[in-house]
Amino acid sequence: MPYVNIRVTEEGVTAAQKLQLIEGVTDLLSSVLGKDPSTTFVIIDEVHTDNWGLNRENITSRRQREAAKNTER
Amino acid sequence: MPYVNIRVTEEGVTAAQKLQLIEGVTDLLSSVLGKDPSTTFVIIDEVHTDNWGLNRENITSRRQREAAKNTER
Amino acid sequence: MPYVNIRVTEEGVTAAQKLQLIEGVTDLLSSVLGKDPSTTFVIIDEVHTDNWGLNRENITSRRQREAAKNTER
Amino acid sequence: MPYVNIRVTEEGVTAAQKLQLIEGVTDLLSSVLGKDPSTTFVIIDEVHTDNWGLNRENITSRRQREAAKNTER
Amino acid sequence: MPYVNIRVTEEGVTAAQKLQLIEGVTDLLSSVLGKDPSTTFVIIDEVHTDNWGLNRENITSRRQREAAKNTER
Amino acid sequence: MPYVNIRVTEEGVTAAQKLQLIEGVTDLLSSVLGKDPSTTFVIIDEVHTDNWGLNRENITSRRQREAAKNTER
Repeated sequence: MPYVNIRVTEEGVTAAQKLQLIEGVTDLLSSVLGKDPSTTFVIIDEVHTDNWGLNRENITSRRQREAAKNTER
Repeated sequence: MPYVNIRVTEEGVTAAQKLQLIEGVTDLLSSVLGKDPSTTFVIIDEVHTDNWGLNRENITSRRQREAAKNTER
Repeated sequence: MPYVNIRVTEEGVTAAQKLQLIEGVTDLLSSVLGKDPSTTFVIIDEVHTDNWGLNRENITSRRQREAAKNTER
Repeated sequence: MPYVNIRVTEEGVTAAQKLQLIEGVTDLLSSVLGKDPSTTFVIIDEVHTDNWGLNRENITSRRQREAAKNTER
Repeated sequence: MPYVNIRVTEEGVTAAQKLQLIEGVTDLLSSVLGKDPSTTFVIIDEVHTDNWGLNRENITSRRQREAAKNTER
Repeated sequence: MPYVNIRVTEEGVTAAQKLQLIEGVTDLLSSVLGKDPSTTFVIIDEVHTDNWGLNRENITSRRQREAAKNTER
């Protein structure tokens, strides 16, 4: 009866991709630990890029820097 | 000073129902463990049915199957 | 299929009290929102009093102050 | 590589304030525990005031009581 | 930069199995969403069976019932 | 009434350091958002290094690699 919480930034994850995550995590817990899929919960939280910090900056800024770098090239 | 996090699917839970959950959980912690309501936090997260997986499918699909089954009858 | 996480300080909560919390929360979600007990998860985390802060102090100190106050009387 | 989750009520927190929280928490973990900012995650969750309970009431009601009290004066 | 929290019951999960979960989840997020493994966190929480409720009972009791059923056969 | 959860690896964090984290986070939320310390919760979770994954490995291995590198020098 595992509970899995996946938190990712809110950047256009599709329902099909979410389903792939749900299936993949459920299968992993079944194959590694023998957990029953019928009591395996997977919850995906999508977090606004302003609300996620890494390395003292938010992901909104990080993405802008990355985009600027790609444009320069 | 308990902290309680209730996660349910986002399917039209009303403010009145949320209040019943808040009151019920606070009373439970007060009666079972003697916890002080004035420092009891209850946070309710409503999760989109695409983002909640159970038994290798998302709840959106599960609800559609359930609805189809009820229509057949 | 709700998921409920109850966090309390680690201060001798018995297995019987934990079961009362599990039963009480499950019944509450069933009566207020019609949620199925067979897919209702309740997880209780017990947190060391050094690791829980409230009002800028840890609970270890708070309990010591409370005990001292009771002894004075 | 700390993970920090800050949950506050959804009451108009600006992107600039969120950034101050991200910077402040990252610096604190660096100075107190020597943690590397490049693997320090800070995630801020904003919770609707109907969904947050304290002292057996939701924060929506608490704010209304506070506002009423201020008006009376 | 995903954050994944896996919660399972504390029933003898080995370090090797934990590593398989860490690798599997990291690979899944890389292949489905293109997430960078170097900023993918996976945290596994092992929860005492007395502290995990499902279907109004704790997992300690559930395991005892399952064991009794297997012995009968 | 913020709730803050700090998760770090279990590597000898002292009670004094935990208190510095509690004070620092509480002061930050007070200064940035005007939050009341008397309803600010800070919970610190210490996670075993086998249970924390980053970059497809657990922190136990990461620390061994780091120690080996320092010995070489």
